Amino acid sequence: MDIVSHINRVYEPIDKAIAQVVKASKFSLDIVEIGLINALGRIAAEDVVSPINFPPFNRSAVDGYAICSDSITSASPANPIPLRLRGKMEGEYTCNDAVEIHTGEKIPEPFDAVVMLEDVYVAGNSIYVMRSVPRYANISIAGEDFKIGEILIEKGVIVRPWHIAMLSTIGRNSIKVYRELNIGVITTGSEVRDSDAGIEAYEKGYILDSTSKLVLATLSEYRFIKPRWYGIYPDDINMISKVLLRALDENEIVITTGGTGPGGHDVTHRGVRSIGAEIIVQGIAMRPGRPTSIAIYNGKPIFMLSGFPVAAYIGVKILVLTFISRYLGIKGIEPLEIRAKLLKRVTGVIGYNTFVRVKVYRCGEELCVEPIMLRGSGILSSLAKANGFLEIPSNVEGFEKGDYVWIQML
Amino acid sequence: MDIVSHINRVYEPIDKAIAQVVKASKFSLDIVEIGLINALGRIAAEDVVSPINFPPFNRSAVDGYAICSDSITSASPANPIPLRLRGKMEGEYTCNDAVEIHTGEKIPEPFDAVVMLEDVYVAGNSIYVMRSVPRYANISIAGEDFKIGEILIEKGVIVRPWHIAMLSTIGRNSIKVYRELNIGVITTGSEVRDSDAGIEAYEKGYILDSTSKLVLATLSEYRFIKPRWYGIYPDDINMISKVLLRALDENEIVITTGGTGPGGHDVTHRGVRSIGAEIIVQGIAMRPGRPTSIAIYNGKPIFMLSGFPVAAYIGVKILVLTFISRYLGIKGIEPLEIRAKLLKRVTGVIGYNTFVRVKVYRCGEELCVEPIMLRGSGILSSLAKANGFLEIPSNVEGFEKGDYVWIQML
Repeated sequence: MDIVSHINRVYEPIDKAIAQVVKASKFSLDIVEIGLINALGRIAAEDVVSPINFPPFNRSAVDGYAICSDSITSASPANPIPLRLRGKMEGEYTCNDAVEIHTGEKIPEPFDAVVMLEDVYVAGNSIYVMRSVPRYANISIAGEDFKIGEILIEKGVIVRPWHIAMLSTIGRNSIKVYRELNIGVITTGSEVRDSDAGIEAYEKGYILDSTSKLVLATLSEYRFIKPRWYGIYPDDINMISKVLLRALDENEIVITTGGTGPGGHDVTHRGVRSIGAEIIVQGIAMRPGRPTSIAIYNGKPIFMLSGFPVAAYIGVKILVLTFISRYLGIKGIEPLEIRAKLLKRVTGVIGYNTFVRVKVYRCGEELCVEPIMLRGSGILSSLAKANGFLEIPSNVEGFEKGDYVWIQML
Repeated sequence: MDIVSHINRVYEPIDKAIAQVVKASKFSLDIVEIGLINALGRIAAEDVVSPINFPPFNRSAVDGYAICSDSITSASPANPIPLRLRGKMEGEYTCNDAVEIHTGEKIPEPFDAVVMLEDVYVAGNSIYVMRSVPRYANISIAGEDFKIGEILIEKGVIVRPWHIAMLSTIGRNSIKVYRELNIGVITTGSEVRDSDAGIEAYEKGYILDSTSKLVLATLSEYRFIKPRWYGIYPDDINMISKVLLRALDENEIVITTGGTGPGGHDVTHRGVRSIGAEIIVQGIAMRPGRPTSIAIYNGKPIFMLSGFPVAAYIGVKILVLTFISRYLGIKGIEPLEIRAKLLKRVTGVIGYNTFVRVKVYRCGEELCVEPIMLRGSGILSSLAKANGFLEIPSNVEGFEKGDYVWIQML
């Protein structure tokens, strides 16, 4: 008689699992130099150092008149101080002169401040200054924005709009970035059909694939990732092996969805083993996503995510993106967690990091968090109703109503 | 004698300014049907209604055995309940049977629960169930994710990954979205040169254009916007009029940067007037960005933003994007504001909404906010150092150290 027992397994903690994948991975991304607007959302592959002080000279911060501050110390509406209004480029000025100046223009010698238009009467060739200003009033001092030799963009930073503006400011039209990270996504499962098959497929007992679309779209939100879908493969080790090898050849990372259950249904595992990949993490102490495994083939990781959309989504956010961030040294991929008041008790499972979908919203003078109380990791609409998730650490039973908790936004 | 006086002007409150532009605008966006992954970040132009209950049938949430919960009410490790293990598709089952089932598979009649692998011993043609489970245990009930007729995606929503997954689930390969919003960006100023000119340009007193790059990149972060740069135009009304007319012909919205000062330097205003556009907002009660004006031409708005990068950035975020959101009825473009403790006193100016760049970070068990104390609206590096901004309302003098304030993240 054939007795099968399913003993309790030990699941890998998330951080340890990621550390193992970082250690085992051995791929690298080429560096490409691209034009500024195309660099948006890409990962800087160089430290950008300023070749100049900026502003490069003292310049006016307003439209007004450049003057010497010492000449108008006693100025007031009752005691307007006259200055000779000189034209631009009229040669040398003295502290008895004033010159009209526009925002951003260089302050000519010997002037050291700018009076605003509303504090001045203009009469013929003179201006009358009605108010004193201190030295450097309304002036941007040379180098106050950034200085020569200052690092403006650190290697590993995701390029945002102000980085592009700083590059323009220092006369750069391009920046070195890593080429896009290629990630291949493979859907597994004989029961899975593409959405092309239409809802009639459900009547035949099939499932329309939504998980790999969720994974692809989630990756697509990062401009430094180029995901590619390889299609749906039935539970056939030979076919899965073939597509795995092709995807591993064409990408740095491969993600599979489905086929990760602890039962006999683990064709993905068997396919992964059959190509000679090493399974380095088998099961992770997270819920949802416990059956997630990770393998390495030629220094490239294969993340075997759940076929359930929410579990796969958490897998992408918590495992794949954290791995990418650590491995490539990306700065600032993790959004700031926010602090908010929990409106209902939530419980986790000791030994597992539990991820609870939540809705965060403004409630009076603070932020409140409402857990989306839908059980399954298959409940896709819970993601649409949520705008964040709450992580219950593995050593915590849960959080009480009224607790302040940290939330990661979607 | 030619006397010029600069009297205090009344500036338009931000909300009122936006309301006026919404009222005066009369453009519309065509609707296009596009494939799912391309729909990411676009604005849904239809209410997507579910044609099915989902899950379409009761399905297993785990790998295990489908059973009748009533048959195993007394099951325990001391009292294992035997059930006959039947193969799939073996015809009719009874409550004395069990059938192996995988995650996501349909639960066959008459079963009403699933026992997990670890609660079962398999011996030949029988299984022994060691633990009772309630009805519907480990089952996703038909329709529990969403129901027939339920709105899955509302018109106006920005498409995120879970929307794409829901569309796949209901057998859709495409969705109706608005075509991209075309925004033309024109740089003005005789003193401005493109970054091509290199840092040598500064020695000749020129300024390298960074503001329009910042505007273009900020708009580019939204996938439903297609910004286009028209180049740099000197202070020549004829040239500015011509490029304005071309940009207005080719876009729904036009943004100019520079040339908005209150002095004689307002060539942009004169260019806008010369084509017959109506200036409906002249000066806005916001700092930075006070000289911002807005005109309307043939129902299309022209936002005349500052030439200073930070002021222009705030103009895009606070004026242009809020206008777009209200005019097109976009849902969820504004990120959630977060609540955090202010570490230093900040002051605004009564009568103006003041935007202070801040750095928000985790400090122990809460979030702290540090204002980036750099004065000018030209200080680009302040944006790189910041990750959010704090709005001081026009009727508030400022906030004290220790106050809890709302922050909008960059």
